[in-house]
Amino acid sequence: MGLLKAKGVVYEPVEKVDLGPDSREFYLRANVKAPRMAGFLVKIFSWFLESRIFGPALLYILTRNNLVHKLVSNAELEESPLYVPLHPFEELNEPEVKLIDADLSPPHRVQQAIECLPNLLNGLNYSFRRWTIMDYSRAYNSGQITPYAVAERLIAAIRQSSTPPMDMAFFINYNVEDIFRQATESTQRYQTGKPISALDGVPIAVKDEIDCNPYPTTGGTKWLHKFRPCKEDAYCVKCLRSCGAMLIGKTNMHELGAGTSGINPHYGATRNPYDAGKISGGSSSGSAAVVAAGLCPVSLGVDGGGSVRMPAALCGVVGFKPTFGRVPHAGVLPLNWTVGMVGVLAGTIEDAFIIYAAISGQFPLNESSNTQPPKVYFPLLRSSSPISNVRLARYGEWFNDCSDDIRACCSHALDQLYEKCGWKTVEVTIPEIEAMRLAHYVTIGTECTTSLSSYLEKLNFAELGWDARVALSVYGAFNAKEYVKAQKLRNRVMEFHKKIFAKADVIVTPTIGVTAYPIFKDAMETGELDYINGAALVRYQIAGNFLGLPAVTIPVGYDEKGLPIGLQFIGKPWSEPTLIHIAFAMQALCISDYRKPQVFYDLLKED
Amino acid sequence: MGLLKAKGVVYEPVEKVDLGPDSREFYLRANVKAPRMAGFLVKIFSWFLESRIFGPALLYILTRNNLVHKLVSNAELEESPLYVPLHPFEELNEPEVKLIDADLSPPHRVQQAIECLPNLLNGLNYSFRRWTIMDYSRAYNSGQITPYAVAERLIAAIRQSSTPPMDMAFFINYNVEDIFRQATESTQRYQTGKPISALDGVPIAVKDEIDCNPYPTTGGTKWLHKFRPCKEDAYCVKCLRSCGAMLIGKTNMHELGAGTSGINPHYGATRNPYDAGKISGGSSSGSAAVVAAGLCPVSLGVDGGGSVRMPAALCGVVGFKPTFGRVPHAGVLPLNWTVGMVGVLAGTIEDAFIIYAAISGQFPLNESSNTQPPKVYFPLLRSSSPISNVRLARYGEWFNDCSDDIRACCSHALDQLYEKCGWKTVEVTIPEIEAMRLAHYVTIGTECTTSLSSYLEKLNFAELGWDARVALSVYGAFNAKEYVKAQKLRNRVMEFHKKIFAKADVIVTPTIGVTAYPIFKDAMETGELDYINGAALVRYQIAGNFLGLPAVTIPVGYDEKGLPIGLQFIGKPWSEPTLIHIAFAMQALCISDYRKPQVFYDLLKED
Repeated sequence: MGLLKAKGVVYEPVEKVDLGPDSREFYLRANVKAPRMAGFLVKIFSWFLESRIFGPALLYILTRNNLVHKLVSNAELEESPLYVPLHPFEELNEPEVKLIDADLSPPHRVQQAIECLPNLLNGLNYSFRRWTIMDYSRAYNSGQITPYAVAERLIAAIRQSSTPPMDMAFFINYNVEDIFRQATESTQRYQTGKPISALDGVPIAVKDEIDCNPYPTTGGTKWLHKFRPCKEDAYCVKCLRSCGAMLIGKTNMHELGAGTSGINPHYGATRNPYDAGKISGGSSSGSAAVVAAGLCPVSLGVDGGGSVRMPAALCGVVGFKPTFGRVPHAGVLPLNWTVGMVGVLAGTIEDAFIIYAAISGQFPLNESSNTQPPKVYFPLLRSSSPISNVRLARYGEWFNDCSDDIRACCSHALDQLYEKCGWKTVEVTIPEIEAMRLAHYVTIGTECTTSLSSYLEKLNFAELGWDARVALSVYGAFNAKEYVKAQKLRNRVMEFHKKIFAKADVIVTPTIGVTAYPIFKDAMETGELDYINGAALVRYQIAGNFLGLPAVTIPVGYDEKGLPIGLQFIGKPWSEPTLIHIAFAMQALCISDYRKPQVFYDLLKED
Repeated sequence: MGLLKAKGVVYEPVEKVDLGPDSREFYLRANVKAPRMAGFLVKIFSWFLESRIFGPALLYILTRNNLVHKLVSNAELEESPLYVPLHPFEELNEPEVKLIDADLSPPHRVQQAIECLPNLLNGLNYSFRRWTIMDYSRAYNSGQITPYAVAERLIAAIRQSSTPPMDMAFFINYNVEDIFRQATESTQRYQTGKPISALDGVPIAVKDEIDCNPYPTTGGTKWLHKFRPCKEDAYCVKCLRSCGAMLIGKTNMHELGAGTSGINPHYGATRNPYDAGKISGGSSSGSAAVVAAGLCPVSLGVDGGGSVRMPAALCGVVGFKPTFGRVPHAGVLPLNWTVGMVGVLAGTIEDAFIIYAAISGQFPLNESSNTQPPKVYFPLLRSSSPISNVRLARYGEWFNDCSDDIRACCSHALDQLYEKCGWKTVEVTIPEIEAMRLAHYVTIGTECTTSLSSYLEKLNFAELGWDARVALSVYGAFNAKEYVKAQKLRNRVMEFHKKIFAKADVIVTPTIGVTAYPIFKDAMETGELDYINGAALVRYQIAGNFLGLPAVTIPVGYDEKGLPIGLQFIGKPWSEPTLIHIAFAMQALCISDYRKPQVFYDLLKED
C-alpha cells in the first residue's frame, strides 16, 4: 500500500461553491489522451487488458490518466451517497398543464395527449417533414391507405435498406409474418370502424435492449438472448401493443450499449440516413436511424449515458428521456438500472409526447417505499403562443465546448427563443461536470458488470466484439470504494443542479459536441475505440442519466456538410410538461429549415 | 479472465423458498478455517496482505475460502439492490403503547418514558441489581447524596480500575475537571430544586466513536482525531446533555470497530467485570464494561455488526439497538453508515428505554425524500402482567449453533416465557444467514474503507494496530460488483425477514455463540485474529445491522464459569415498543438470578 497513490481532490462544501457566471470554478475539459484504435490494434489492446499480468497495471494507468483516481476514487467529499436518482415528487405548478387521471389505460392516455395537441404542422411553413402519428391515423381513418399496405411498403423498405448496396444495418431482427399479422388485425379494426387508438397500425420499432415478442432480446450481442430468453413484452411495449401499434422489429444498437458509435461488429454499423458513410451514433443507433429514414414515426430506445439523445441528434430527430422512474423498467435489459431509462425517438416532439403518454404513468416508485407517487401532468400545447417567462440556464464554457458549426447553430437557436418567445437566458456555472462524467462511468460500468456477471462466467469471450471486450475489462475494474465515492458525487452534483434549478426552468446545451463522423472500414469487424469523439458525444448527456433528470433533444440545424445538429434541454425532476412545451416552441422555430435525409422512405405517399 | 473463477450460487426466487420448520433450506455453518493468530504471526500475516505481490492472491484465497465468492460475488440473484435499510414507517398497532408528540424536547421525552414505567425493581425479588437512573434521581432529589459526591466516588473508581493491578482499560479518555464541572452544576440545580430531568447528574459514558466535548474522538485509534477534530457533541450526546446528564468520558473500543474482542493495542484490552481475565467483547467494549461494573447505569455505544449487543451480552447487561434511522447519526464517526447505529447499554431495560426516549424521535429520514417520518410510540409497561399473545420465531438449527451452556440457558429462558407469559414459539427457517453475514462484511468493509480513505492516504500505517491493519487490507479488497451483489442480497434477505414477521412478532436467538473467552498475553500488543470465536460472537447479530432491524439483548443467566449469557429479540422495523415489552417480561423472569460481577463499584451506597 502507498505506492502509486494518486492524490484526490478535496471538494469544497456545496454551499461555498459559486454557481454564478463569474464563479472561480473552472471548466475541466475531458482529459482524453487515447488515440483512436480499430482493427488489429483493438485486439492487441483487448488482449493486454484481459491479461492477468499486464491487465491490472494497464487499467490502473488508464483510470489514473483519465482522472478517475483524482476526481472520484481518492476524492474527499462530505456528501452521503445517493445510490438511486429517484426524486420525490413535487408539485411544480407548471403553466399550461392538465392533470391526468392515474388509472387511465394507455389508449385513453394517448387520447388525452392528442387532445392537448394543436394541428401544428399543417399550419406551419415547413421545408421537410416526416409523417406523424396523426398523419397515419388520419390516413387509416380516411381509408387513404390501410395498415396492411403500409406494412407491405415497410417490409420492402426494410429489405432494401438491410441488404447491399445500402446495408444500413437498421435492424437486428424483424419478422415479416408477425408484421403482417399485426397489420391484418389493425386493418380489420379500421374496416370495422374500431381502431383502438391513434396508434393503431402505426409502425413502431423497438431497440433490441427491450423485450418485445416474438423476438429474442440480444442487447446487440450474439449470446445474451441464449442465457436470458425473452419471456414477455416489456412494460413499455405492452402499453404500445395495447394501443394497437404495429411493432415492426428490433433495432440495431451498440453491443451491450457499451459505446456511442453504433458500430456493431455482429449486426453491422448503423448508417446515418443523412449520410450513409457516417455513424448514426449510439447506443440506440437503429431506433434513431429508422425514424430519420421514415420507416416509422417513432421508436423506443434506452438511454443510459445519452443513448437515446445522442443518436437522435446525430440523425436529426427528436429524442426524449423522461425522469428516472417515470417509465417502469420491467422487461428492459438491466444493464444499468440506476442510470438507464426508456426514451422515445420521434420525428416531432408531438409524437414523442404521444408515446410518452402511452408508456408513462403514476407508478409506485419503489415497493419498499411509501413515497407519494409522482402525478402525471400533460402539457397543453398551443400553436399560436408558447408559454412565457421561461428561464434557460446556460453555462457558457460548457455550451461552447463543441465544434464551430454546432456552437453557431445552437447559439442561433437560443437567440431565436429569446427573440420570438421572449425567454431569458441565465448565465450559470455548473461545477464538476467532468467529475460527474467519471462517476457515472464508474457506476454504469459496475452496474453492467454486476448484471452480466453470471452470464459472463459462462461466456466464451470470442463471442464478444472487441470493443465490448475492452469496455467490459474496464467496467469490471472498479473497486467498491470507487463505486461508493461515485454515489457520493452523485448526491453532490445533484445538489448543484437543485441550486441551478432554483434560478432557471431548464438547462440548455448542445446535444452533441461533434456531428456524425465517418464509419471507417477497419472498425467494421472489431468496432473502434475513439474516446475523443466518444467524449464529445457524451459531453452533455450525463446529468440526464446520473441524476435521473428528464431531457429532450430537438433538431435545430445542420453543419456545413449537411449533418444534423441537436439542442438539448435538461429539466427538473418530473418537469416533462415544461420540457415538451419548450421543445415544441423550439421545433416551431426550426421546422422551416428541416432537410430531407439522403435515405428516406415515404410510406404514406399517395400512388 | 476466466482463471480461478469460483462458481456462484444460483438463488431461487424468494417466493419459492420454504420458510417453515421443515424447509429443505439447510443451515450453513460459518466456514471459518483460519487459526487464531496473535503476536508475531499477526505481523507476518499483515505484511503479506499488504504486499503488492502476495497481497492480492492471499486476499483472493481468503475471500474464496470464506465463501464470499460463492455466496456473494458470483451469486446469481434477481433482486434489485437495497442500498440503505431505511424502512418506510408502518402503523404496527402494537398493544400497550402511547403515541409521543414529535416535538417534545429530550427532557420531556424522558419524563414521558418515566411515566410509562412501573416501579418494577422494588416490587421484585432480585438477587443482585445495579443502581438505576431512577435510583440516582431519587437519591439526588431526596438529598441522600449529591451528584458531586457521586463524581468523587466515580473518579476514584475510574482511577483505581484504570491503573495496575486492575488495568480494566474501560476508558480512552476522561477529564476530571469536566466531570466535576458538570457535577457541580447538577448539584446546584438539585440544591435550587430545579433538576432538568431524571437524568440530571446521572453518570453516562460514551463510546469513543461518538463526538462528545471536550474529548477527541479517537475511534480507538492513535490518529483519527488528528485528521478529524471533534467540533461539537453528536446528536445523541446533545440530547443527553440537554437532560442534565453527567458525561463521564469516552469508553474504550476495538480499534475502528473492526473487531469483536475489545482488545485494543493502544488503549488496552477492556476486561470483563465478571472475570478480569476475559474479554468484554466489542467493539463497544468499554461501554458495556462500565455499566457492568456499576460506574454508570447507562452508556452509549455504536452497533455496526453487533458492537452494542455482543459486549452487552458478554458483560451481563442490556444492549438495545433501535431501528435504522431512529436515532440521527450526526456526530458519530461514519465508519459504516448503512449498518451502524447508535445503541444503548444499560443495567436494566427500563434504563435503556429512558435513554432511547431521550435520543430518539421522529426525524426526517432523508432530506431528499418525502417519506412519512416514523412516529414514536412508547411502551406502557406494567409490572403485573406482560403483554399477551406474543409470537416468537425460532430457527432451531441457528438457535442451537452455540455452546452447550448458552443453548441450555437460552432454551430455559424461552420456556419460562412460554410458561409464565403464555407466549408461543413459531418454528421457522431463516435462509441464507451465512450469505447475509458475508454480504454485510463486504458492505461494512467497503463503507469503512470509503470513509477513511482520505485519512488512510495520509497515514503512517505503523500507527495502526496489527489486527486493524489486517482488517483494513481485507476491507479494501472488495470490488464494485461484489458491493452491489451484497446490496442485492440485502434486499433478498429482507424479503425473507418480512415473511417471517408476517408469522411472528420477533425473532429470538441467543445473543452470542460463546461466552467471554480469555485475554491472552500475546494479543495485548498486536491484537488477535480469532475468526472462529469472532464468528461465534457475530453469529446472531447481522440482521440487526444489515437489515436495520431493532434488537435487544437481555441477560438471562451464566455459564458454568459464571460468565454472562444473553438472549436476543429482533423486531420488525419501528417495533421498539414491542421489543421493550418483551425484554421487560424476560428481565422480570431472570432478575432473581442475577449475579454481582467480581469488579463492581457501588456509587450510591450509604456511608
